[in-house]
Amino acid sequence: MSYKIMAINAGSSSLKFQLLAMPQGSTLCQGLIERIGMPDARITLKTPAEKWQETLPIADHREAVTLLLEKLSGYRIIRSPEEIDGVGHRVAHGGEIFKDSVRVTDETLAEIERLAELAPLHNPVNALGISVFRQLLPDVPAVAVFDTAFHQTLEEPAYIYPLPWRYYSELGIRRYGFHGTSHKYVSATLAEKLGVPLSALRVVCCHLGNGSSICAIKGGRSVNTSMGFTPQSGVMMGTRSGDIDPSILPWVALREGKSPQQLNHLLNNESGLLGVSGVSPDYRDVEQAAEGGNRQAQLALTLFAERIRATIGSYIMQMGGLDALVFTGGIGENSARARAAICQNLHFLGLIVDEEKNRQNAAFIQAENAMVKVAVINTNEELMIARDVMRVALTETVTQRVPA
Amino acid sequence: MSYKIMAINAGSSSLKFQLLAMPQGSTLCQGLIERIGMPDARITLKTPAEKWQETLPIADHREAVTLLLEKLSGYRIIRSPEEIDGVGHRVAHGGEIFKDSVRVTDETLAEIERLAELAPLHNPVNALGISVFRQLLPDVPAVAVFDTAFHQTLEEPAYIYPLPWRYYSELGIRRYGFHGTSHKYVSATLAEKLGVPLSALRVVCCHLGNGSSICAIKGGRSVNTSMGFTPQSGVMMGTRSGDIDPSILPWVALREGKSPQQLNHLLNNESGLLGVSGVSPDYRDVEQAAEGGNRQAQLALTLFAERIRATIGSYIMQMGGLDALVFTGGIGENSARARAAICQNLHFLGLIVDEEKNRQNAAFIQAENAMVKVAVINTNEELMIARDVMRVALTETVTQRVPA
Repeated sequence: MSYKIMAINAGSSSLKFQLLAMPQGSTLCQGLIERIGMPDARITLKTPAEKWQETLPIADHREAVTLLLEKLSGYRIIRSPEEIDGVGHRVAHGGEIFKDSVRVTDETLAEIERLAELAPLHNPVNALGISVFRQLLPDVPAVAVFDTAFHQTLEEPAYIYPLPWRYYSELGIRRYGFHGTSHKYVSATLAEKLGVPLSALRVVCCHLGNGSSICAIKGGRSVNTSMGFTPQSGVMMGTRSGDIDPSILPWVALREGKSPQQLNHLLNNESGLLGVSGVSPDYRDVEQAAEGGNRQAQLALTLFAERIRATIGSYIMQMGGLDALVFTGGIGENSARARAAICQNLHFLGLIVDEEKNRQNAAFIQAENAMVKVAVINTNEELMIARDVMRVALTETVTQRVPA
Repeated sequence: MSYKIMAINAGSSSLKFQLLAMPQGSTLCQGLIERIGMPDARITLKTPAEKWQETLPIADHREAVTLLLEKLSGYRIIRSPEEIDGVGHRVAHGGEIFKDSVRVTDETLAEIERLAELAPLHNPVNALGISVFRQLLPDVPAVAVFDTAFHQTLEEPAYIYPLPWRYYSELGIRRYGFHGTSHKYVSATLAEKLGVPLSALRVVCCHLGNGSSICAIKGGRSVNTSMGFTPQSGVMMGTRSGDIDPSILPWVALREGKSPQQLNHLLNNESGLLGVSGVSPDYRDVEQAAEGGNRQAQLALTLFAERIRATIGSYIMQMGGLDALVFTGGIGENSARARAAICQNLHFLGLIVDEEKNRQNAAFIQAENAMVKVAVINTNEELMIARDVMRVALTETVTQRVPA
């Protein structure tokens, strides 16, 4: 028995999709529709064997999804849209309401729209994607998978900020955390690879990409994570500063007459690797500049690693030790330099990386005599979404690989 | 041979003073002039044997210092102001210029005034205090002792923020750190008590008072500290939030129309223990409310401890281990509950507190089988200031108890 599950990530002018055969988890087709709303929009589809690309006008998300369903049948990837057994939608923010993936109803859709206040750039387009699929495939179950849900297991001391209480109780300002689908997938995969139940492990997961977040996972539950109320905070990223002295903001606002919008732009778009190196937000470019002797680029890489190390240290304190460290995301999966910088001089923790294994991006890169496992795992949010569609909407008997 | 050294801490409407006999370090007299500029100002002087207090009009700082010198002679604490061998002035901010205490000249005084941009509430009154003493005691050497100087040993990865480079190079936005005089004194005292050279130790020092900061001291040098560009950041304090997701500020500014000044007030005066507990900024009041069952007060105490633990963990990563943890400041010296909460479940680090010793505020409170020493040391910034006056202005041969 095999199901065909579509995983959707809707952006303001784009739609990323992947069609998976479940529970096998194999990709039947994946692709992207870009520049929605433009006369020169583009659809790209790839199967393991073939690739198609077409430029054409696409007026809106409804037209985009209609086109996608046509193409899937047209290219004989599926016989008809009715073959799709379920659709899973990535949703940025689930607030405090959604503590797990849910089957979409009119009520849940309304809640997702209401949460736009917390994620104004993402939740409205995520909701739009859901609406369009529901209109076009009214009989196919839809599941919303939230970037925040995995972190709803955080306890108060990890999510409350030391602000006046009403900022939490009335405005909902607290740590939500993001990248939850990735952290959940990667920690479950780690346990599988180790052959140890996740419930027995204390894990720190480093999702390092254009956006980066660190997650402390104890017994399979997220107990802390570095992104907070927004995905700007925590560790240093490509263009995001991560945590800084908060008082820098009013100081800069007074000194340079910056508006709140300009402060947001500073924190989100001008800082991080780009801001310090002056070279690029892309870790690979900064790495290259550093190797060429650029001092600010070298400092940017050191700073990037130091802030991650500091976060790992704080999570070890909270969990009372560490069994495994996991690297994932574009940088985590591919940069041996980043992993080496983060893991250096941690012998005192029993954490030692084998240089050769690290250079090869091996699945496990710890030295033989190390106490702490160090894993490199390719994240797969689409597979995690498809699994959640299966679990929530299609069958109760599918093997659950992660704690619900 | 004994010197009489005056240690001065000038505020906007107050002047704290202490007269010490050096190098013995004994206090000859200490006191406070309050409400300077008011008709009902008050001067308080205490010697080990006696105490005087008087309410009278004091127009300005010059009048306050004149009165102080009169009283010292009048009460026969000294025969005449000429007996004072040196004056040490606490100065809030030394920027990147002052990496150690310095003898005051016209040039250094001008620099201190110029640094008012970084410490607008403190440097101008500190400079005023220095000026008045120089006018009234022109032949007595004056030394400026900076709250930031001890942290000038931080390396770039510890002090650069992941912001665009010009925020550092043009605006001077970086981690400066504060409480340096206290961290320096306490770490030196620790080494003395342990009978181990400070150069051999990795220490984390927790200065916990109304303002709180944590400092990582490796080989006697500050290598990291929790306060940053301003003393608002780092761990949670009485009314200060410490670090939060920076993006909360533009969000709140847009949502509630708050000005930069109002954001500063929120971060500095409405948050921390007061904000979370809703009870008081005073740790003792919050402790009492927590014991009475107040849930927000209990959470405030947990949050206070957790944020300190996280910082300690990050410093252990940076130093590659920990030899000693020190508590100082009003809370650090007196609250067994705070120390116990911060040290709980750290057996995996070899850090174990003896409950009974902790309850007694003993000098060392670690358990007998613990690897990490845990010390409680009363801070004494006045003594540290007096030592620096001796070292910088009076003699090269006085035993240096701390690295210069």
